[in-house]
Amino acid sequence: MTTESVSSQAKDGRREDILRAALESFHTEGYSQTSVRALAEATGLSVAGLYYHFKTKEQILFTIIDGLRDQLLADIRTARDAWKTPEERLVAMLTATVRLVLARRAEIRVQLDNLDRLAPELQEIVQEKARESTKIVRAELESLQQADKLGDFDVNLVTYTLFGMTNWVYYWYDPQGPLSAEKLIDQLVRMLLHGIMKD
Amino acid sequence: MTTESVSSQAKDGRREDILRAALESFHTEGYSQTSVRALAEATGLSVAGLYYHFKTKEQILFTIIDGLRDQLLADIRTARDAWKTPEERLVAMLTATVRLVLARRAEIRVQLDNLDRLAPELQEIVQEKARESTKIVRAELESLQQADKLGDFDVNLVTYTLFGMTNWVYYWYDPQGPLSAEKLIDQLVRMLLHGIMKD
Repeated sequence: MTTESVSSQAKDGRREDILRAALESFHTEGYSQTSVRALAEATGLSVAGLYYHFKTKEQILFTIIDGLRDQLLADIRTARDAWKTPEERLVAMLTATVRLVLARRAEIRVQLDNLDRLAPELQEIVQEKARESTKIVRAELESLQQADKLGDFDVNLVTYTLFGMTNWVYYWYDPQGPLSAEKLIDQLVRMLLHGIMKD
Repeated sequence: MTTESVSSQAKDGRREDILRAALESFHTEGYSQTSVRALAEATGLSVAGLYYHFKTKEQILFTIIDGLRDQLLADIRTARDAWKTPEERLVAMLTATVRLVLARRAEIRVQLDNLDRLAPELQEIVQEKARESTKIVRAELESLQQADKLGDFDVNLVTYTLFGMTNWVYYWYDPQGPLSAEKLIDQLVRMLLHGIMKD
């Protein structure tokens, strides 16, 4: 291992530390209530040291939200490529989406609360990834429709409803409650698929 | 008509004017950006005159949000009382909820953005009405389950999913788009019912 790669690893580690501390603070204290100074302190850096990694607090927020959208898009692509039929692909895509929602609750809260604080051009980057995810799901619904397996529903309505339902889990599901995450995922995905398919 | 009832009507009219102006301003400008002075001006009142109707800006916000929750609860009770079977009642309740979401977009936005600005005891009043609405829907789902007509789903999951789906319409539905409100309601309610019922 060269000196260069060691130092590049250390740099990545610091970046991750900052993002972790920022996520924690944005989530529990709020974005406005989090100062760059407090983030620097939490990660053992000087303010100047933190600015070396991120030029602004907005850049940190963007990196968190963008990372979430990147992951969703990657998971949806993986689900598509791993399966052959539209039904299998939709099951895999919805499952992956609910899993991500459950795994990344803090990021989702931070995104919901603060997306509109990003500059329009940063919001656009993030929204473009969401549109791409939506497009991939919609394509499978159109395949279902062409195979005459989709009920008599508008494809946009179905697309938004599927995403809405999987995201809504964020609001109501209590991981400490009686319904296990596995049962939640199984039941929700079955309910959605059953709802949209012809008998 | 007595002088007293005329003056009481005038008072109610003023109250409605203030609520209308506040809704408009909270929705377009934001709650924090709306001053009591601007609301007084918009309704042709002095600041003191406005305080005669509402003691605080928070009281105005509460009245708007509480009115929305009251209406939802009333609509859900009406739907229950107008029909006999759990299926019919659920269709009527979901239809009423989507209709309300479409009719009261500004109130819903204001509620989503500002519910957490209300004092805990005011939030509790509003949340209690939401819990009551949820309870009525859940009771019908339990009746379906007892009649062995509900699919193998957790009743809480179904309850939250139904409310989530109907509320989500707020986010994505474009009243100017190609899908009419009547089609939206028909398709969404059919999809949800079909999803939760046994084949």
